[in-house]
Amino acid sequence: MSAIRFEVLHVCKQSGARLGKLYTPHGVIETPIFMPVGTQATVKTLSPEELKEMNTQIILSNTYHLWLQPGDDIIKEAGGLHQFMRWDGPILTDSGGFQVFSLSKLRRITDEGVEFRHHKSGAKLFMTPEKAISIQNNLGSDIMMSFDECVELPADYNYVKESVERTLKWAERGLKVHKNTEKQALFGIVQGGDFEDLREYSAKKTVELDFPGYAIGGLSVGESKETMYRIIETTIPHLPTNKPRYLMGVGSADALIEGCIRGIDMFDCVLPTRIARHGTAMTSFGRVVIKNQQYERDFTPLDPECDCYTCRNYTKSYLRHLFKAEEMFGQRLLSYHNVYFLLKLMEQVRQAIKEDRLLSFRDEFFAKYGYDDPNNKRQF
Amino acid sequence: MSAIRFEVLHVCKQSGARLGKLYTPHGVIETPIFMPVGTQATVKTLSPEELKEMNTQIILSNTYHLWLQPGDDIIKEAGGLHQFMRWDGPILTDSGGFQVFSLSKLRRITDEGVEFRHHKSGAKLFMTPEKAISIQNNLGSDIMMSFDECVELPADYNYVKESVERTLKWAERGLKVHKNTEKQALFGIVQGGDFEDLREYSAKKTVELDFPGYAIGGLSVGESKETMYRIIETTIPHLPTNKPRYLMGVGSADALIEGCIRGIDMFDCVLPTRIARHGTAMTSFGRVVIKNQQYERDFTPLDPECDCYTCRNYTKSYLRHLFKAEEMFGQRLLSYHNVYFLLKLMEQVRQAIKEDRLLSFRDEFFAKYGYDDPNNKRQF
Repeated sequence: MSAIRFEVLHVCKQSGARLGKLYTPHGVIETPIFMPVGTQATVKTLSPEELKEMNTQIILSNTYHLWLQPGDDIIKEAGGLHQFMRWDGPILTDSGGFQVFSLSKLRRITDEGVEFRHHKSGAKLFMTPEKAISIQNNLGSDIMMSFDECVELPADYNYVKESVERTLKWAERGLKVHKNTEKQALFGIVQGGDFEDLREYSAKKTVELDFPGYAIGGLSVGESKETMYRIIETTIPHLPTNKPRYLMGVGSADALIEGCIRGIDMFDCVLPTRIARHGTAMTSFGRVVIKNQQYERDFTPLDPECDCYTCRNYTKSYLRHLFKAEEMFGQRLLSYHNVYFLLKLMEQVRQAIKEDRLLSFRDEFFAKYGYDDPNNKRQF
Repeated sequence: MSAIRFEVLHVCKQSGARLGKLYTPHGVIETPIFMPVGTQATVKTLSPEELKEMNTQIILSNTYHLWLQPGDDIIKEAGGLHQFMRWDGPILTDSGGFQVFSLSKLRRITDEGVEFRHHKSGAKLFMTPEKAISIQNNLGSDIMMSFDECVELPADYNYVKESVERTLKWAERGLKVHKNTEKQALFGIVQGGDFEDLREYSAKKTVELDFPGYAIGGLSVGESKETMYRIIETTIPHLPTNKPRYLMGVGSADALIEGCIRGIDMFDCVLPTRIARHGTAMTSFGRVVIKNQQYERDFTPLDPECDCYTCRNYTKSYLRHLFKAEEMFGQRLLSYHNVYFLLKLMEQVRQAIKEDRLLSFRDEFFAKYGYDDPNNKRQF
């Protein structure tokens, strides 16, 4: 029996977006959902209690980072990742593939696996599909990901074709060594760059391997949003309707909504916490760069429509001061707000699906956010 | 009428330490007390709610820093410092004197005031006793401090003598311009370096000015602890028994206890939060440097005798990981623990005073902490 179970509760008559429930060993998740990222066994600056308080249903953590520091053996000894970091809700771990390809230097890819250098120490390391599974087994995440090759775009057709074959072989090898299927569900990842035929091929072949869930990987890696949406549209029809679909590494407000409309159930991204640490807040009216002079004497909250801890208590003037003074509490308050903002957005999306009005919701949201203003498109 | 009222409830028969109550416009403080430092309108990494949760009774904030960033005019416009930073308990602000003398460069001291350069921008600034009061009036702290000259030790006798006279004149000028006495209490500061006769002179003359409370300044600035204790002993007999006594800038566990034994009621120091951010925890058994290899697989709490949030939830292994991975949440968890540790220590001190056994408590505490071990003295 699989570790997870997925139910589609409703399909939005206006948009085709899905409302679902994903049952995991550590709790039930209402989908579509955004997963805050806790790369190194902590969602940067935030406590597990704060994540709970803002209704975080599941977090993502990174296999690559935890393998190198503190080491998956130590986390296993601690009783697994949930116990180690004191997060008792569901956890999804990625496969390390994305980091191996984006962070490490001097990598050499063979069918066997990837040889590469540690992104800090320069030490020689070797990652294989089997190793990625074994690390994730040690971490004990609820949802694991197959080891895949993530190709940066634009890329050569023949290279991507070869890479898709390799990722398929790696997926099969991962499935073979994953024994803990009753406690941990292993998802397959569709690749294929921005080539529609390769995406279709990758989707069909991955589905043949029969995973309990499927991810669309290798997007948000340099291509335009139009391309990203086109690739999602190409891929989705080849994924089973009764399994969860996860769009990896995507977390801007517009892409979350557009992804749901195209049938995605799960998202993750470091975006909200990363831009928060650099002083940018996501709000109902677009982004706020808190260090701007205009907020010096602005004694109103970050987002007047938000009821998060930060917005209920602090003014833009105070937040600006914290960033000008380089105080960590500012990064903490903005991280809180941004994660809250995306979780709340997904809650509104779920409600809109339930009421068959997701397209209308999108239009209202975009109008308020300033998305209609062509000069503001990068503000997402 | 003064903004504050002070009561001595009990004097420890064994040690002479005082148990008291200090009534301020924002609440009643049980003394002796340690005041966590929120230099830039935030106790680094911690929220006001967390400070409340660990029974913080009063915090200290820095006039010099807030004057320069965001500016006391902005804080006044925000409704005062309490409102600006959302801390509704008592606040003590220092006078800026210590920072003018320790942080700034190229300073020129005259009887009029101090001309100096901004510690970051290099801009030319001028601080006077009147300015220090006006800034603190804008901040709206419950307890304000007189502008004083803080001399680094060792220092020349004649220079210190001259400086003591200057500080006395500055104190008088400050008193003259402070009008908001019903809402904000202004404390005087005793100086005099490590010269007993100058300390006695400074104390007597400062007390003649009739402040509602007195601080001992210019200690913990390079002298030995023996010298510090001797100077406290020299000064205390010249301070009135019915006014609070505040030892500025001292926060190591041993000095807090020794200070109380010598009749001090209030302390502040950045020590707990500063060493926390660098990975050092204060515990019942001495200091723990969390990055040490020995904690890699140590799945026990930081301090088995501590019941703070950090110790109730996290292991040394996890905390070490957070510091190795340079995660802010580690700094937050250690800051929480260290502040809690000192507040709890003061609670134990108050209990020991009540039960006339503070000397016994000190001996037990020091024995456990490893203070008897001469090699461990610097561990405080």
